[in-house]
Amino acid sequence: MTVADDDGAPDEFGLIAELFAPLAAGYPGALGLTDDAAFMPAEPGTDTVVTMDAMVAGVHFLPDDPPDQIARKLVRVNLSDLAAKGASVSVVMLAAAFPVGISRGWLRRFATGLKQDLDYFGVVLIGGDTVSTPGPLTLALTAFGKVAAGRGLLRSGARPGDEVWVSGSIGDGALGLRACRGQLEHLADGHVAALAERYRLPNPRTRLGPSLLGLASASMDVSDGLVQDLGHLCRASGVAAEVEAALVPRSAAAEAALAADQSLLATMLTGGDDYELLFTTPAGAADVLERLSRELAVPLTRIGRIVAGDGRGGVVVLGGDGAPLALAHGGWRHFRSEGGDGWSG
Amino acid sequence: MTVADDDGAPDEFGLIAELFAPLAAGYPGALGLTDDAAFMPAEPGTDTVVTMDAMVAGVHFLPDDPPDQIARKLVRVNLSDLAAKGASVSVVMLAAAFPVGISRGWLRRFATGLKQDLDYFGVVLIGGDTVSTPGPLTLALTAFGKVAAGRGLLRSGARPGDEVWVSGSIGDGALGLRACRGQLEHLADGHVAALAERYRLPNPRTRLGPSLLGLASASMDVSDGLVQDLGHLCRASGVAAEVEAALVPRSAAAEAALAADQSLLATMLTGGDDYELLFTTPAGAADVLERLSRELAVPLTRIGRIVAGDGRGGVVVLGGDGAPLALAHGGWRHFRSEGGDGWSG
Repeated sequence: MTVADDDGAPDEFGLIAELFAPLAAGYPGALGLTDDAAFMPAEPGTDTVVTMDAMVAGVHFLPDDPPDQIARKLVRVNLSDLAAKGASVSVVMLAAAFPVGISRGWLRRFATGLKQDLDYFGVVLIGGDTVSTPGPLTLALTAFGKVAAGRGLLRSGARPGDEVWVSGSIGDGALGLRACRGQLEHLADGHVAALAERYRLPNPRTRLGPSLLGLASASMDVSDGLVQDLGHLCRASGVAAEVEAALVPRSAAAEAALAADQSLLATMLTGGDDYELLFTTPAGAADVLERLSRELAVPLTRIGRIVAGDGRGGVVVLGGDGAPLALAHGGWRHFRSEGGDGWSG
Repeated sequence: MTVADDDGAPDEFGLIAELFAPLAAGYPGALGLTDDAAFMPAEPGTDTVVTMDAMVAGVHFLPDDPPDQIARKLVRVNLSDLAAKGASVSVVMLAAAFPVGISRGWLRRFATGLKQDLDYFGVVLIGGDTVSTPGPLTLALTAFGKVAAGRGLLRSGARPGDEVWVSGSIGDGALGLRACRGQLEHLADGHVAALAERYRLPNPRTRLGPSLLGLASASMDVSDGLVQDLGHLCRASGVAAEVEAALVPRSAAAEAALAADQSLLATMLTGGDDYELLFTTPAGAADVLERLSRELAVPLTRIGRIVAGDGRGGVVVLGGDGAPLALAHGGWRHFRSEGGDGWSG
């Protein structure tokens, strides 16, 4: 790897080691990132929950996004998967293919963002790999969490009669991508900034997820789009779902965008990158969830219900008149094929 | 991701799911690769050993290498790291950024190679991510192994007076890269083919590694080049090393290449991609290692000794006349910066 020498020092691999080694502090098995592998002691009575998501410049983030935000988004999309399983996060590993000629300043800002979020979420970097690429910046993170043995939340536990809930607000991720691309000129600057921020920096629900253990019958995170992901959950559970569009929670910025352009509703319901939790509960959990919502300061909203299905995971979104909305399938494929989520990620 | 439609079917993500799902068979926690994450039950009394290595087309393998061999090399370089720690391999996760327009036939051959080696080494794919990239094929594998708690082999255990050993033969990886590039025309075809095969398809020492538990004082795999990697081991151990060039084991093909061009000796000693084990033992282990070598049918050769060091991990390679060889530093940096190995990989 050749690094643009913007501050006089030639050895970028030395720089990377210097920047990343402090992120492994306090975890003996990381061996200071100087060995072939890392060692994780067994914790009897727990399952280790692992996920791995990749991101490519120009596909999952914009090439000129601030490097610290790219690093933080990478951490957050992975932590969101662990939260959805009810797991508490412990450690991560990073594989980074940095473009030939990337500057040392860029690398420093990337490491700063990585450290910021690892510190914030209480996570340690225990290993990984750094290589050079003639192509775009390509990143993969493996995140490890813990959950009581056999207690983790799966996609497959939803049953007819269960209620469908989401955290936070839905649609901000997809609108945020449009905001970043300058496609929401009619919106007030504050709203554009809020949506762009949501796209660049999701908020993984790391406290909510473990709180849903024993409450949720099924859970996943919304990364490919609400309708698409609810379809995944339904297929895994062998059920179907009905969602009322009017119940789906929207941010103030999304509300304003929708007021100016009603056609954005489909984008919000089928676009990706929300990184909210989508979960089901047996009927009657509303009071408990309301308390949990206040306690964690995370909005929790019931948006629909699980019904018996034909095994194809059908999701019907009902409009204000009670009739199903026609949502363009192409939209979901588009976002799905941007791959916000892994097969297990 | 858009896939060249070379056999009439349009859905490459469906194809990938169809190709990869069988690789998760038999591991309940993989959830058929259909959930957000995978679950690994704790095994009391063991450490989980994890490594993550990335590979980029045109950097770590040739873009026109057979896709099954690319998949198998990815598996093998990671298993080599686990073997070096004495760990038995259990599961892997894969993140793959496939170039836009990659053909379905290519994907099938890649999956076939992946399955071949996972089956061969008894490993299960438990999760990962597939995304599209406008750049070169970029792969990252996270490999998980097991070792008795606290017993794993580290780089840091070498002590003055220990002997330095390697498995197999050294230099074939670097010569193999030259062979693949057509830079060894003077060699017989059989030798060229043997070297190229070694570069494309390393043999991780998965049986040898666990057999070294209790025997080796320090261990790592040779991926950045023998001299470079022995330097890493020495730095981690706070020692230095002397190697006798004449003792370093060579394959018949490497011997022939060297006979035609003596300058290749430096390439062999400092080039990468051998994926042999480099380990140290207290003096007196030769008989045990000889038996082990016969039992596993893996050559084991003593190549030098550990001496007291100044903490900088100096490695001296002695020529036939007992004088140190002058090895170009640039060579190692070149190979090191191709990143055959992670900071923990």
